[in-house]
Amino acid sequence: MSKRALSVTREQDFPEWYQVAVRDGDMAETSPVRGCMVIKPWGWGVWERIQAELDARIKDTGHENCYFPLFIPMSFLAKEAEHVEGFAKEMAVVTHHRLKNEGGKLVVDPAAKLEEPLIVRPTSETIIGDAFQRWIKSYRDLPLLINQWANVVRWEMRTRLFLRTTEFLWQEGHTAHADRDDAMAETRKMLEVYREFAENVLAMPVIAGEKPANERFPGADNTYSIEAMMQDGKALQAGTSHYLGTHFAEAQNIQFQNREGQLEYCHTTSWGVSTRLIGGVIMTHGDDDGLRMPPKIAPRQIVIVPMLRDKPEDKDLLDYCASLEKELKAKGIRVLVDAKPVKSAEKRWNWVRRGAPVIVEIGGRDAAGGNVTFMRRDVLRDGDKIVSHTKPVAEFVAGAPALLDDIQAKLFAEAKARLDGNIVTGIKTFDELAEYFGAADAEDEGGAFKGWAYVAWAKPEGAKLEAIAERLKALKLTIRNAPLDQKPVEGMCLFTGDAAREYVLIGRAY
Amino acid sequence: MSKRALSVTREQDFPEWYQVAVRDGDMAETSPVRGCMVIKPWGWGVWERIQAELDARIKDTGHENCYFPLFIPMSFLAKEAEHVEGFAKEMAVVTHHRLKNEGGKLVVDPAAKLEEPLIVRPTSETIIGDAFQRWIKSYRDLPLLINQWANVVRWEMRTRLFLRTTEFLWQEGHTAHADRDDAMAETRKMLEVYREFAENVLAMPVIAGEKPANERFPGADNTYSIEAMMQDGKALQAGTSHYLGTHFAEAQNIQFQNREGQLEYCHTTSWGVSTRLIGGVIMTHGDDDGLRMPPKIAPRQIVIVPMLRDKPEDKDLLDYCASLEKELKAKGIRVLVDAKPVKSAEKRWNWVRRGAPVIVEIGGRDAAGGNVTFMRRDVLRDGDKIVSHTKPVAEFVAGAPALLDDIQAKLFAEAKARLDGNIVTGIKTFDELAEYFGAADAEDEGGAFKGWAYVAWAKPEGAKLEAIAERLKALKLTIRNAPLDQKPVEGMCLFTGDAAREYVLIGRAY
Ligand SMILES: [Zn+2]
Ligand SMILES: [Zn+2]
Repeated sequence: MSKRALSVTREQDFPEWYQVAVRDGDMAETSPVRGCMVIKPWGWGVWERIQAELDARIKDTGHENCYFPLFIPMSFLAKEAEHVEGFAKEMAVVTHHRLKNEGGKLVVDPAAKLEEPLIVRPTSETIIGDAFQRWIKSYRDLPLLINQWANVVRWEMRTRLFLRTTEFLWQEGHTAHADRDDAMAETRKMLEVYREFAENVLAMPVIAGEKPANERFPGADNTYSIEAMMQDGKALQAGTSHYLGTHFAEAQNIQFQNREGQLEYCHTTSWGVSTRLIGGVIMTHGDDDGLRMPPKIAPRQIVIVPMLRDKPEDKDLLDYCASLEKELKAKGIRVLVDAKPVKSAEKRWNWVRRGAPVIVEIGGRDAAGGNVTFMRRDVLRDGDKIVSHTKPVAEFVAGAPALLDDIQAKLFAEAKARLDGNIVTGIKTFDELAEYFGAADAEDEGGAFKGWAYVAWAKPEGAKLEAIAERLKALKLTIRNAPLDQKPVEGMCLFTGDAAREYVLIGRAY
Repeated sequence: MSKRALSVTREQDFPEWYQVAVRDGDMAETSPVRGCMVIKPWGWGVWERIQAELDARIKDTGHENCYFPLFIPMSFLAKEAEHVEGFAKEMAVVTHHRLKNEGGKLVVDPAAKLEEPLIVRPTSETIIGDAFQRWIKSYRDLPLLINQWANVVRWEMRTRLFLRTTEFLWQEGHTAHADRDDAMAETRKMLEVYREFAENVLAMPVIAGEKPANERFPGADNTYSIEAMMQDGKALQAGTSHYLGTHFAEAQNIQFQNREGQLEYCHTTSWGVSTRLIGGVIMTHGDDDGLRMPPKIAPRQIVIVPMLRDKPEDKDLLDYCASLEKELKAKGIRVLVDAKPVKSAEKRWNWVRRGAPVIVEIGGRDAAGGNVTFMRRDVLRDGDKIVSHTKPVAEFVAGAPALLDDIQAKLFAEAKARLDGNIVTGIKTFDELAEYFGAADAEDEGGAFKGWAYVAWAKPEGAKLEAIAERLKALKLTIRNAPLDQKPVEGMCLFTGDAAREYVLIGRAY
């Protein structure tokens, strides 16, 4: 039995803790539709904040939003050979366009079969490529920088709220360029936008790097990712950016007339992050009392709980809270007075589990003395004891923006220390690696915190790489990425014994 | 041949004018997926503004946003009998969840057939009702006020960009209440939110009223709408709000414990507006030179076109424009400097066709004299001549917010005068009605502007109403709604000769 607000601690059972944290934090729930989730108001509020912050960055870097069809004709998916081969092919297929009433029962009307099946978009390279092919005529139309916010569907067998769901929400950027340099610069620029966004908005430290060839997006020449370390030591791929070469342009005839009047294929990119980020935030910051939302994405940054007693004095208390709310709003803070007819202790704990950054409780004594009593969700306790602070109202209001900034910074610093402290660097051989991460089958039931290993390798491709991936897979490990920012490489490849070419991060992953 | 910026005028061929206005205004285009559209950056920017303005109103009235699954199990749709009967049944049906490679060809994998087909949501009453059934336990949980922004699919045979597409985007509000009064108040409140939004944000005057029984949402007890008059005199149903009684609650077991501890069914509502609104804006405000965007939803309210000449002086011109841009931005205005390497006359006409509210052209003389030369898109011409204004830059900047307000107000006033001036009130018999609207088959090819008729009727239901609807249909007419704000009724029912109970509006519709 946990002595904390959640029924299970992270140490006891991290996967179970995650489920309880999502549920008790009012973020989302499973639906009667296999693998699809219902995102509840608090969870959706987080996504709205993520959208607003990231959308501003996407627009600031010159991209325009569009909207493309939900459905993709099956023949479109077949256009780029690697793309269709590499994609899992687990997709939602629309085959009919009508239901009919047969003896009082609703059935699919066999007369309404589509000539060509439609796929619910798993990603939109092909349908957007079709538009690019029409829109791009000359070098003057380049670069073409487009983004869309949309729902996508990939039929998943084992699903987990936010982390892997059949339907999820994301943004997908798609761009076309005159040459490799410009497209590669775009690919790297958006990776950096993701890194900055993850660290400064989600307070989630990440490592930006290039994925090994076997982990590339199907049809990409280069795939980059940001990888975050969860509290169980596993990696979460939190965003990807792809340089697609001319593969999609060739498959879909996306050509432009260059300055010399000749036709050339465009170089294209795509990049995306999804509602998966929310799972990352939960597993980065949550504790045994529930979620801890970074102030920049908390739908409500300060929640005021009046300690109502169903007595005439309640009115004064509510007036006091309303006036505090107004002053905080005037400072641009997202604030809520929770005046629901529920016991104030219950409300306090609900907001603790949801991770509101600052929880204010106002009782008669606070109102009479002109004070504010509050808890910081980032440092809720000292040992087992809840820590609360009391300040004169003017001082609290004046300091509120700085308080929120401090919470944001502390959450980041805590996660950054965990990431930095849990990347092991001394491993030189595969046996050492295997020993370090332990037997694969022990892992599922919790297991000790391992983090990642930073190892030198020769960057092999083809069959050699396949073999390495297989060996790692037996240990439930994968190569996460080769960090962009890395030390000069020394020594031998951990896998092949050849001279090493770079360092890569190895870990278990979601 | 049109003497205006579009190749066809409204008078020549209104439906064709609409298509050209949408295309030349860079709003949207058809896609290779039957009935689905691609919304282009300018069109999407309008939708973003609509979302932002309406979302704030939905939140201000106490609703919270959520997200529910894209797919609805077929059995859910069958739960509410009228709902399934009334719905067109033209829906996208997902029957399989995998593709496979068969001899190098991508085919639907017959082994991956779903046990129960999934429907791509045409509306979400049933899937949201399922959540309500889980979330609502006691009267304390009521009212439950939820909204979602989502894409929906209704398989349409004849489609038209924005007005009727297979996939469209919308918001759908869904609420549950303890009794009829509270649910009805919600239904009417959201209708009023739509009216205020349409008039004050879209500058589109509407008439709010109740639909006749034969036009109700399937499963609703009462359906209300806002109806807007397009420039061809046709009505556009621009938003609906439904009181659903306890029908869906009974079908889905949405019950609550009342204060006395007894179980009761909830009364539910739903209400929505969609990307169809954009079609309404185009047909309300567009003229023969293209779109005219109300400033409140224009993605760019002021566009600055520097008259570049590919000479060294260009730099001064661009600096001048950048400084103007900065000053306008500081006033909270959405402004763009269009410095693309395209002739300035071409750029000007592009912005005219897109309907940017104010188009500024800056030449060397303006920069030297510290002036701004601009056109108002709402009053672009005097006769055939383009009207431009010149003002000192400080004066222009200081007056810019008021200028935009004035354009917004003028667009509304113009549309309001058209609406008010085109509702005929003297019609007393069906023959007069038939004569007024003329032969049905003449209508499709333009025909004279007719507007609507405001007639008295006895509000019959059942078979009598069906018969009336059939007679009207032969004239391509429908009853739009019974305005909430109406005169005391006098005389006989135009259809039955019984004593009249209220006035209704009759017209042709999109
Ligand atoms: Zn390549
Ligand atoms: Zn009823």
